[in-house]
Amino acid sequence: MTTTVPTLDLTADPVELTAALVDVPSVSGDEAMLADALEHALRTQAPHLEVVRSGAAVLARTHLGRARRVLLAGHTDTVPIADNVPSRREGDLLYGCGTSDMKSGDAVFAHLAATLTEPRHDLTLVFYDCEEIEATRNGLGRIERELPDWLRADLAILGEPTGGAVEAGCQGTLRVEIRTQGRRAHSARSWLGDNAVHHAADVLARLNAYTARDVDIDGCVYREGLQAVRIAGGVAGNVVPDECVVTVNFRFAPDRDAEAAQAHVREVFDGYDLTVTDLSPGALPGLAAPAAREFLAATGTTAQAKYGWTDVSRFAALGIPAINYGPGDPNLAHTREEHVDTRAITGCTDVLWRFLA
Amino acid sequence: MTTTVPTLDLTADPVELTAALVDVPSVSGDEAMLADALEHALRTQAPHLEVVRSGAAVLARTHLGRARRVLLAGHTDTVPIADNVPSRREGDLLYGCGTSDMKSGDAVFAHLAATLTEPRHDLTLVFYDCEEIEATRNGLGRIERELPDWLRADLAILGEPTGGAVEAGCQGTLRVEIRTQGRRAHSARSWLGDNAVHHAADVLARLNAYTARDVDIDGCVYREGLQAVRIAGGVAGNVVPDECVVTVNFRFAPDRDAEAAQAHVREVFDGYDLTVTDLSPGALPGLAAPAAREFLAATGTTAQAKYGWTDVSRFAALGIPAINYGPGDPNLAHTREEHVDTRAITGCTDVLWRFLA
Repeated sequence: MTTTVPTLDLTADPVELTAALVDVPSVSGDEAMLADALEHALRTQAPHLEVVRSGAAVLARTHLGRARRVLLAGHTDTVPIADNVPSRREGDLLYGCGTSDMKSGDAVFAHLAATLTEPRHDLTLVFYDCEEIEATRNGLGRIERELPDWLRADLAILGEPTGGAVEAGCQGTLRVEIRTQGRRAHSARSWLGDNAVHHAADVLARLNAYTARDVDIDGCVYREGLQAVRIAGGVAGNVVPDECVVTVNFRFAPDRDAEAAQAHVREVFDGYDLTVTDLSPGALPGLAAPAAREFLAATGTTAQAKYGWTDVSRFAALGIPAINYGPGDPNLAHTREEHVDTRAITGCTDVLWRFLA
Repeated sequence: MTTTVPTLDLTADPVELTAALVDVPSVSGDEAMLADALEHALRTQAPHLEVVRSGAAVLARTHLGRARRVLLAGHTDTVPIADNVPSRREGDLLYGCGTSDMKSGDAVFAHLAATLTEPRHDLTLVFYDCEEIEATRNGLGRIERELPDWLRADLAILGEPTGGAVEAGCQGTLRVEIRTQGRRAHSARSWLGDNAVHHAADVLARLNAYTARDVDIDGCVYREGLQAVRIAGGVAGNVVPDECVVTVNFRFAPDRDAEAAQAHVREVFDGYDLTVTDLSPGALPGLAAPAAREFLAATGTTAQAKYGWTDVSRFAALGIPAINYGPGDPNLAHTREEHVDTRAITGCTDVLWRFLA
């Protein structure tokens, strides 16, 4: 079997390049063809860059001896296609799987990498795989383990969909299972049992009574939240249940570290059996860093807090200020009708050009 | 293929007959071979009886012109076998699928039918299929539709496991789904949503606050119960759920009819969206009927309320006093270690002999 590597024109309008990237399907775990195309395009159209390959990730960088290095990172994978590939254009909107999350960001970065041969800061490009699935497979995590020096930078910009806003840092996320116990019995003789679902009333009451914090850090307001995302209990239609599990998701501001977040949730549900099933620390906005200030000035706007958890926290953990900034619309990510406003693509390209040229 | 009909000796000790019935597997829907065996045995060993066949049910009756008719009914099906067929004897205990629920009752009835050729009351025997599964397939329901005159009687005794106690009437059962609604949102921006699981706190609080009635009817105390038997809500680990369903089972005393039971539950959960998924009326004990009093006298004991729902309610609906009375242990029904105390088989046989001889 001969596979032809799709051709990508990195010097084309980033709107066209976004469409071209969308038209090469790259559902998580299946990004090899798109990585081949990006690698080939960078090697042939951007000879000023050092290019390496790591699995289905492609990395490229300048060596201009600048005082600072800016890293532009974007994942190339998408959630499963939902009848929305290939892309199609409707006026100013470009529809298709990955248009917002986040091939438009990738397109902007790849275009700048190829066309800005003499940037003011040294540049590192990271196009990585498997962001949309379990954290253990995340391509950025693999690069951190295998090619750590490639992640050195003074500022990291992640092209996640922010609708062109600067979203700084990110909140952490903690998931716990709270288990109530009881004793099974036939529901016709319920007094012989002890209903674990009834016991969950208090767990839910505590959630209802909870007041979430708003935390201001570097002018970004992080709004926390404590929510039941799942509840499950029941054995059969005629049995008093002996167990009920409430899964609670705590989204926490980056002034709490992972330990503090856990301690807080344990305090809220004091007296209950808690199991932590997922814990990802947040990331402080890091807007005091000179490169971050300079980037913000180029955008002519102020930063907002990022609520969702993103890979910026990996950079924060490495001590690198990291920002989410991309043309995609976060509300359209993962939807069947996913699209991007092409004017946002052009706008982001202009801002980054201003910052880097 | 030639199938040999298993031989059953109806005149043997009912303990031996129980073992023989257990050794012919008859999981619900698969009772034909056992029905063949019972039919053959009744036709050859009880020529004083009129015998008919209805699907996998076998019916038999006397025509002695007695003032009263007593109906003895037992289902022949069992729940799925769990490595517990054939039967095995351990001292006074007989182990095996259906030993308690309710082939020991069937054995007592079949033995009396064959050996009591001149009973004091006319006798009707009903060995029916598909009691352990969905009500629409219940063999007794089919007989009621197709052979209604076979169910005429002054007293019906169901051989359901009661451990030799007289359990009168039965409670009704109502199952409702209570649905709370909300609005989905990403859990990182939970204030954009409305958590349906949190709303279920009030449903559970009402269950916790509920005080169930104890109702005395004919000296039988029916103890009601209102229990969540299931709760389910949740979309994904990062989504504020927009729906939560609490399934509640109300076991109600037979002084409430189906309508009244429903109205009561609607009142308890006033303001909520309720869906009735299952509703079976209870049965009044009917102990004032002469035949019931006479039977009670033969047992030398008093009646207790039956908590679980049984087919006695079908007889109650036909205006026939109906009693649960069988040697099986209700706590062992449907268990892997199901067994019956052989002394209870002998005891029940003696009581019924005293009543009917």
